[in-house]
Amino acid sequence: MQTQILEKQDTEAFWEALAQCLSPNDLICGADVSETDIKDWSTEIPGKPIGLALPRSTQEVSEVLSLCNRHSIPVVPQGGRTGLAGGAVASDGALLLSLARMSGIEEIDTASATATVLAGTPLQTIQEAAEAEGMMFGLDLGPRGSCQIGGNISTNAGGNRVIRYGMTRDLVLGLEVVLADGRILSMLNRMPKNNAALDMKPLFIGSEGTLGVITRAVLKLHPGIAGANTALVALPDFDSALALLGHARRVLSDRVSAFEVMWADYFDAVLDVTGLRAPLESKAPLYVLIDMQGPDPEKENDLFHDMLAEAMEQGWVLDAALAQSQKDALDLWALRDGVTELLMTTRPTINFDVSVPIAKIGECVAHMRAALETDFPEMNRFFFGHIGDSNIHLVTGPLPADPNVEHRIESLVYEIVRNFSGSVSAEHGIGLHKKPWLKYSRSDEELTLLRELKQTLDPKGILNPGKVL
Amino acid sequence: MQTQILEKQDTEAFWEALAQCLSPNDLICGADVSETDIKDWSTEIPGKPIGLALPRSTQEVSEVLSLCNRHSIPVVPQGGRTGLAGGAVASDGALLLSLARMSGIEEIDTASATATVLAGTPLQTIQEAAEAEGMMFGLDLGPRGSCQIGGNISTNAGGNRVIRYGMTRDLVLGLEVVLADGRILSMLNRMPKNNAALDMKPLFIGSEGTLGVITRAVLKLHPGIAGANTALVALPDFDSALALLGHARRVLSDRVSAFEVMWADYFDAVLDVTGLRAPLESKAPLYVLIDMQGPDPEKENDLFHDMLAEAMEQGWVLDAALAQSQKDALDLWALRDGVTELLMTTRPTINFDVSVPIAKIGECVAHMRAALETDFPEMNRFFFGHIGDSNIHLVTGPLPADPNVEHRIESLVYEIVRNFSGSVSAEHGIGLHKKPWLKYSRSDEELTLLRELKQTLDPKGILNPGKVL
Repeated sequence: MQTQILEKQDTEAFWEALAQCLSPNDLICGADVSETDIKDWSTEIPGKPIGLALPRSTQEVSEVLSLCNRHSIPVVPQGGRTGLAGGAVASDGALLLSLARMSGIEEIDTASATATVLAGTPLQTIQEAAEAEGMMFGLDLGPRGSCQIGGNISTNAGGNRVIRYGMTRDLVLGLEVVLADGRILSMLNRMPKNNAALDMKPLFIGSEGTLGVITRAVLKLHPGIAGANTALVALPDFDSALALLGHARRVLSDRVSAFEVMWADYFDAVLDVTGLRAPLESKAPLYVLIDMQGPDPEKENDLFHDMLAEAMEQGWVLDAALAQSQKDALDLWALRDGVTELLMTTRPTINFDVSVPIAKIGECVAHMRAALETDFPEMNRFFFGHIGDSNIHLVTGPLPADPNVEHRIESLVYEIVRNFSGSVSAEHGIGLHKKPWLKYSRSDEELTLLRELKQTLDPKGILNPGKVL
Repeated sequence: MQTQILEKQDTEAFWEALAQCLSPNDLICGADVSETDIKDWSTEIPGKPIGLALPRSTQEVSEVLSLCNRHSIPVVPQGGRTGLAGGAVASDGALLLSLARMSGIEEIDTASATATVLAGTPLQTIQEAAEAEGMMFGLDLGPRGSCQIGGNISTNAGGNRVIRYGMTRDLVLGLEVVLADGRILSMLNRMPKNNAALDMKPLFIGSEGTLGVITRAVLKLHPGIAGANTALVALPDFDSALALLGHARRVLSDRVSAFEVMWADYFDAVLDVTGLRAPLESKAPLYVLIDMQGPDPEKENDLFHDMLAEAMEQGWVLDAALAQSQKDALDLWALRDGVTELLMTTRPTINFDVSVPIAKIGECVAHMRAALETDFPEMNRFFFGHIGDSNIHLVTGPLPADPNVEHRIESLVYEIVRNFSGSVSAEHGIGLHKKPWLKYSRSDEELTLLRELKQTLDPKGILNPGKVL
């Protein structure tokens, strides 16, 4: 009995102190937290949080974390909650810490090619602000209007242009982070070159809120681009896709901004469900959508044509449809984006996001397809991917009615990934969803060191508990 | 007395065990270690090491470190010892651990665009192996024939092509590292995309051997290039250099591979000491050497010309000398490389390597020049830099005869760097040489976290003690 009373007093003291950290409208208690605020875009089932804090400054984040740390209250940091791995879903008894009210662009420095932004700023706001200054921000992904840069950084988001601009990690020059105990770590570097001791920013990029809360960032910008040359090509086999990729990168230097491979099973199914017109007359085992973005696509038209002509001469490309207009390009991209419609027809679905070394992708896909055909012949499987990034996406479904089937399919796929020294998560992260499979891509020694780092940075384990590790 | 006997027994036991870890020719004891093996290219005075170990495998590195850790023997990891910050000089009582005998390229995978190499492999060997396969490795620096990739990675080397390919950090996909206690951490990732939990490789990139010993790496390769378009241009002021940089990057996309700024003081002095012919008729306050490397420089000639013509029309460029041949290009580069001769005429010298946000470089250089002119009027000061990388180099000398002068000059320069939120080390690292100035670029909170990480990864502090922190 006494324990309960003490606990109650402690809880009351915590809430009183928490209310002191924030303005009244920036703290929502227990039952008043909305159903949408406890979830992300994953299928993970959320727990019951004790409340939702919406700080407006780094100082407030620091005070909230310091308080939670003293009281050993778990904290779930949240951005736009568009993640697919469950990294931002509520945990039982945790305080949700949303960065949504720390939104805004503090500076665009065109000479230094940097943008300084608050963590809660939506990705699209940053893209548009860069474009308004004749620059561009290299990161782009579907939920650009909802996702926030703090979430993009903490999950090391990938997306549509990784082949050219890298992952989010490659676009971050500086960070401000609040540690579990409330310490503010200002690493707002703005220089491409800075070798004044170890760069500690990477600890907070891709650690999904388990080592610190990102509050501010300095981002790297690139020169603005005016448009793209786009083509859809048909290929005889995967080796030709590799040859085409090498050729395109050699001839077009770094300007290849998309190289999306679609295997025939995916391609034909998308034509079927979307009713889109086939842009090429003949059928092929493999298709690639290739984009070269540049400052003056008209001028670079010939270069792009010559590149494709040479690829046809070499036999790597069987047939090609070149976009003659912006509309043509959108029509070609609709085939790649048709995955949305495809997913609706294959429910319930498992949507895989894995990577293997680029040279092994063809072989790996063949293994997966054969194994799935054998064990789950009644189920569809559609393969596509960003092969320049080593990334394979696989959509499987509709799942057979068997409570264990999801685990069995995942096990089959992830074992093949492991055999190819690949990663069970190319871009979506680990969160809750892929925790059981993390050991397929990380050794015991790596997981031990990860735990040691967690212990160092968050000794009470309050930050996003139960996620990743 | 008893303590001494115990110590002696302990020492003997250590040496016996160490001899068991290595082949007889791979261990050199105390006095037999050569004078060159205890130094690097810095001016730091080396201590007296207890010996030099030259392991031939990761397993041997692991056994040596495990043993040293048990006996609390400090270890100084060494690559090609070409560093300028003293990171590899011997410490008193330390065992030198050279990776020189772990040299070789294990694989070049052209389809995945990766090279897997042992830590002791010279940089040039890797460059040549990549070129032989029609690829290129983006890292390049002066001592390419002597420096080793393990040292390049552990110091996060910069060099000549950072503007295009980034620092060494940006070129490492995978690492194998041995921790202080001998644990082998295999993180030999080969995929551009891998979000299976936190990327821990960055802990070992740029930490100068204080957190682990790198034994193997997977490097990112780029498409081979066939040559360059090169020009030397004269500019009216620094704002024009910024305008030209933005313009060149916009028009040439990512193909700008060098953008070397030389202020008139540097440029005129180099012409003077080298006797090289001035490539431009008129004098200007600022010169830029610009390189665009590509797969077909002939084809891209027009693009490069048009870019410069537009810059002249805008008034950013006053005059331009375009290389018409490989020899012309080498002649223009000789002006930039003339720093070697310049250094010989300004001895004793301090050779600064700092960075500040790109937009602030002009203002920062003006501050430094004015302050140096006021306080040290008799001394020369020459400014040049890779401004696309935010990097300023400053050569000062000959130093006045005053024992404290070095500290006074460094203090003057680094205080200005601090006021511009810059870095006291752009690319050379901290080592021993810049330890006193690290706090000018890193906050107390950052240094505390650095110490916490050191404590976690190397609790006995055996790895490169006294360096960096």
